[in-house]
Amino acid sequence: MVVHVNAATSVDGKLASRRREQLAISGPADFARVERVRAANDAVMVGVGTVLADDPSLTVDDAELVAEREERGAPPQPTRVVADSTARTPPDARVLDGSAPTVVLVASSAPAERVAAIEDAGATVVSAGAERVDLPAAVDELAARGLVDVMVEGGGELIFSLFEASLVDELSVYVGSTLIGGRDAPTLADGEGFVADYPDLDLVGVERIDDGVLLRYDC
Amino acid sequence: MVVHVNAATSVDGKLASRRREQLAISGPADFARVERVRAANDAVMVGVGTVLADDPSLTVDDAELVAEREERGAPPQPTRVVADSTARTPPDARVLDGSAPTVVLVASSAPAERVAAIEDAGATVVSAGAERVDLPAAVDELAARGLVDVMVEGGGELIFSLFEASLVDELSVYVGSTLIGGRDAPTLADGEGFVADYPDLDLVGVERIDDGVLLRYDC
Repeated sequence: MVVHVNAATSVDGKLASRRREQLAISGPADFARVERVRAANDAVMVGVGTVLADDPSLTVDDAELVAEREERGAPPQPTRVVADSTARTPPDARVLDGSAPTVVLVASSAPAERVAAIEDAGATVVSAGAERVDLPAAVDELAARGLVDVMVEGGGELIFSLFEASLVDELSVYVGSTLIGGRDAPTLADGEGFVADYPDLDLVGVERIDDGVLLRYDC
Repeated sequence: MVVHVNAATSVDGKLASRRREQLAISGPADFARVERVRAANDAVMVGVGTVLADDPSLTVDDAELVAEREERGAPPQPTRVVADSTARTPPDARVLDGSAPTVVLVASSAPAERVAAIEDAGATVVSAGAERVDLPAAVDELAARGLVDVMVEGGGELIFSLFEASLVDELSVYVGSTLIGGRDAPTLADGEGFVADYPDLDLVGVERIDDGVLLRYDC
């Protein structure tokens, strides 16, 4: 199983402004790269905060990439996975639009009504953990369902939780040539943060793309 | 006049953990580079938050670099500058140890007693702005005193304020291969943050140093 985190940040490590409004950090070449990474994975995962802020579809839009997936016997689209402890994914969210399979990971304490609404919208709900999603158990459960290679697209809370649980194998960060600023703006890794035993990453790639730079790490 | 911001961050844009404890983000080669940049500038500036958290000396320690400064007719040490609106710099801070000239920038509302204590410790106090240091006026005042090339070493509040005032000419960020995390950890650019008109930087250099990468931008 491989968990590959992919994100775009400003020079100061922000994913968005303090208002959580999306902003074009990367350009067309990096956008195409992200599509290729999506297409190469079994699943594309985000935290519910990203669903609520950006309402992404998380699908592969490039018809050639879809055809390549089908040629190698994969489903046309990777499975969308939302880490959503309290089942806050809105039933009308794009990730529940039926254009690709969707798994919503919830904790067992998630309100049954909201869980039912998500299931009614066509998603598979997987429960792991009591109050918060137990990520190691959830990732094992995904692997058991054949979702072995997982790309994580954010946000900062999920990314930190995955690092905290030592679940990240690869990290790709596109650093765009802008500065967002803001002590309350979301960053690549939020959560509580480490205060010791910081993850020791191995920089394996530095590549200029568009007007920024892609940094790749083994974790 | 040239304002050059230089900082080291984790992959997620943090300057330190949420506890503000210093951590070795860069290695010996980058440390030597920072000394060279210090030695090349007339002044080295930080915000008072950095003084309170790290108590840096901000001096050039390498005797050869000091000799080079003297050969070109410069004082042996760059002037240390602290942006300190309310005069919180402790009189026993290393920046007030007399090993180099020090200018403390305060606002006119700074308590007279604390201003006097800083002056007694041997620093020059420059007042600019009413409640907060007026950075454009302060930078002009530094230039009038012959401090034309200014290196800024942090923290995130000062760096954001300088970008907000369009005072930054060059930005160098050493991105170390670690992850700190934490929604409350200080980042390269904190403050209120931009929500529009984000600074458009020009990536002019990408260089692997130690186990990380140095990104250089024209601003």
